[in-house]
Amino acid sequence: MTQAINTQTKAAFQALKCKECGAEYELQASHVCELCFGPLEVAYDYSALRRSVTRESIQAGPNSMWRYRQFLPVNSENPIDVGTGMTPLVRSQRLARRLGLNKLYIKNDAVNMPTLSFKDRVVSVALTRARELGFTTVSCASTGNLANSTAAIAAHAGLDCCVFIPADLEAGKVLGSLIYSPTLMAVKGNYDQVNRLCSEVANTHGWGFVNINLRPYYSEGSKTLGFEVAEQLGWQLPDHIVAPLASGSLFTKIYKGFNEFVEAGLVEGKPVKFSGAQAEGCSPIAQAYKEGRDFIKPVKPNTIAKSIAIGNPADGVYAVEIAKKTGGSIEAVTDAEIIEGIKLLAETEGIFTETAGGTTIAVLKKLVEAGKIDPDETTVVYITGNGLKTQEAVHGYIGEPLTIEAKLDSFEQALERSRTLERLEWQQVLV
Amino acid sequence: MTQAINTQTKAAFQALKCKECGAEYELQASHVCELCFGPLEVAYDYSALRRSVTRESIQAGPNSMWRYRQFLPVNSENPIDVGTGMTPLVRSQRLARRLGLNKLYIKNDAVNMPTLSFKDRVVSVALTRARELGFTTVSCASTGNLANSTAAIAAHAGLDCCVFIPADLEAGKVLGSLIYSPTLMAVKGNYDQVNRLCSEVANTHGWGFVNINLRPYYSEGSKTLGFEVAEQLGWQLPDHIVAPLASGSLFTKIYKGFNEFVEAGLVEGKPVKFSGAQAEGCSPIAQAYKEGRDFIKPVKPNTIAKSIAIGNPADGVYAVEIAKKTGGSIEAVTDAEIIEGIKLLAETEGIFTETAGGTTIAVLKKLVEAGKIDPDETTVVYITGNGLKTQEAVHGYIGEPLTIEAKLDSFEQALERSRTLERLEWQQVLV
Ligand SMILES: [Zn+2]
Ligand SMILES: [Zn+2]
Repeated sequence: MTQAINTQTKAAFQALKCKECGAEYELQASHVCELCFGPLEVAYDYSALRRSVTRESIQAGPNSMWRYRQFLPVNSENPIDVGTGMTPLVRSQRLARRLGLNKLYIKNDAVNMPTLSFKDRVVSVALTRARELGFTTVSCASTGNLANSTAAIAAHAGLDCCVFIPADLEAGKVLGSLIYSPTLMAVKGNYDQVNRLCSEVANTHGWGFVNINLRPYYSEGSKTLGFEVAEQLGWQLPDHIVAPLASGSLFTKIYKGFNEFVEAGLVEGKPVKFSGAQAEGCSPIAQAYKEGRDFIKPVKPNTIAKSIAIGNPADGVYAVEIAKKTGGSIEAVTDAEIIEGIKLLAETEGIFTETAGGTTIAVLKKLVEAGKIDPDETTVVYITGNGLKTQEAVHGYIGEPLTIEAKLDSFEQALERSRTLERLEWQQVLV
Repeated sequence: MTQAINTQTKAAFQALKCKECGAEYELQASHVCELCFGPLEVAYDYSALRRSVTRESIQAGPNSMWRYRQFLPVNSENPIDVGTGMTPLVRSQRLARRLGLNKLYIKNDAVNMPTLSFKDRVVSVALTRARELGFTTVSCASTGNLANSTAAIAAHAGLDCCVFIPADLEAGKVLGSLIYSPTLMAVKGNYDQVNRLCSEVANTHGWGFVNINLRPYYSEGSKTLGFEVAEQLGWQLPDHIVAPLASGSLFTKIYKGFNEFVEAGLVEGKPVKFSGAQAEGCSPIAQAYKEGRDFIKPVKPNTIAKSIAIGNPADGVYAVEIAKKTGGSIEAVTDAEIIEGIKLLAETEGIFTETAGGTTIAVLKKLVEAGKIDPDETTVVYITGNGLKTQEAVHGYIGEPLTIEAKLDSFEQALERSRTLERLEWQQVLV
């Protein structure tokens, strides 16, 4: 991006802090507390942020997620900025009407730069930090989108890259990594097995794994999905958000982002309900929520929504906690409902999302029908990835083109046939 | 989008004007001069624009192409704004170094909203105008991207939609239209045959064909690719641009956009070289340029770059004229060079483009090697569509994943094998 980045103040991030026991650590590549094995999170000097950051200083920054640089754990004056973030927040008209909502917004990371998912946000932060910490090879365990993003942004930054995916991924996601020429390891097993293997590799190879040893930095990137929504709503928080749950990290970081904006005096504090979406074929967080448990029972994933199919979600308990304390919900939907969700969003808003987005739209619908979202609440639904990467999921559910000759009468006949068919379908609906 | 659109002044567009004889027409759905059969173009009151538009008024507009609304041929205070435009302008580092350029920028419409190509710009204008003119069904003749865009934005706007494509299109582009539930006609024939059929349908059905009877309005949307680059460069024009040539319209409208910004006093005037890119398998414009002709000889397309495979390009002569008078060039590249172009951009910048973008990058390389681009020129290369839509094109050219067991030793062996292979490849390169 061409705009200069605001560099008036030094970085506000201070330490890694255990989310469980509060122990503090130096800002190195580590993610687990040595005392209690809790996850580490980045801590900031919020009074410094309150003094140095204003709405105007943010708006004067680049038209990317890096306008929020001071809330991110990097020192670089030139972070890896490929134009990631500042994706559109669309005021929904037709989906809103269909669902009976009055103030529905769609945050659309299906057009995020460069690889069309929210993962570009977390990877931009992780690789910037990896470079600061001296890593020359970066890596990840991925359900697909993360591999695409790590491979692409590593290519841009000139870092060596080795990514790990389950061997049975969608073709679009495999090709969407290979095109950037990383070393691509397709592991015979599900994501949780890939993840365990990667933890071992991280210990032996000295690589920067964006979602393992760099996880505390990486996950902070998701806060920008909170920041942007607040700024795009005119420096206000919404009343209700609905987001997909994979590891649970995204959910907790949107929450952290909203709170940090309040803390820094950029928006007024108010209650925001947090609702989460899972696929029934992999819904350990939804199950824990439903059963009122404060722990997660790992499951074996079996769903078309592969990008969110994490059977042993690292931040699952925190997601349950946030949904409960904010008055939100966590719901799961079937694969059939996921496909309907993809089609519904496409037909009403012209946005083609992948299975994760279909899950989120289907859960949104379910929550509205159950009376859990008030029609007048300002509701934001997070679409986190693009449908072109999971084309298999909708094959066979979207009809076929009408093949015709390049002649007017062939066209007229086909048009007549399709109109007759539509009328018949309507009559069946009415019967 | 949430920001209010600047509505202080009334629309500055005044008439449709013949590009050849200058005859003026009312602002209806027509595209051909009745006197000389020349193409019609929208004319504006530039003195009104100069009085009413400032850099600040533009920056206060929405973060989309509609910040330039006063330069677009619509009256609506609420145009169809799905967040289209304001895509990133990336300062290239690694591709620039590889090519030996010092000031290379990539305008990346591969992440344009909603359907990942620049066509969302022209369709947003065309459908807004279609609605103003009272059309309830919109249509297009398309090589794929335009069908995706028309179907998506019509869905968003609640307009009926029937799109026409050649029957042999890439799977991603067919699915990328069907998902929005338009009527989709797959015509047995090439684009030029599809286009002829659509002209007949336009005459008989009273539909708004975005690139036929609405073409004068539609094509104006491409000017925003000129406006945005000028604004993103800090309100300056570049020295050289490289863009793909299909019908030639995009090229002429970037040119018009730059000139309008000068005319309105928003940037200083200066010479900008315009270079165009075609695929050898469909290069009627490049051939006319090479042979110094002022007319186009239609060709039968045979290239993997289907989205720019127009054998009888409507604005071809104007493209030749602009390249000549600005001191630019028009070049064609082979399908093999196109694939290399796609890979080069992905490996150096982390941007995955479709075949049209591969064509443009390959031509950029060719122009640099021929000394036709000075290393110190501020050069902007336009990437107009996303690689996920033409995955077939790179299948078989990007290697395979290394399939491994979920075990450390299986990983170590695969890594060793891949490193040995890389060493061998390097040795072969060196031999
Ligand atoms: Zn601890
Ligand atoms: Zn004329």
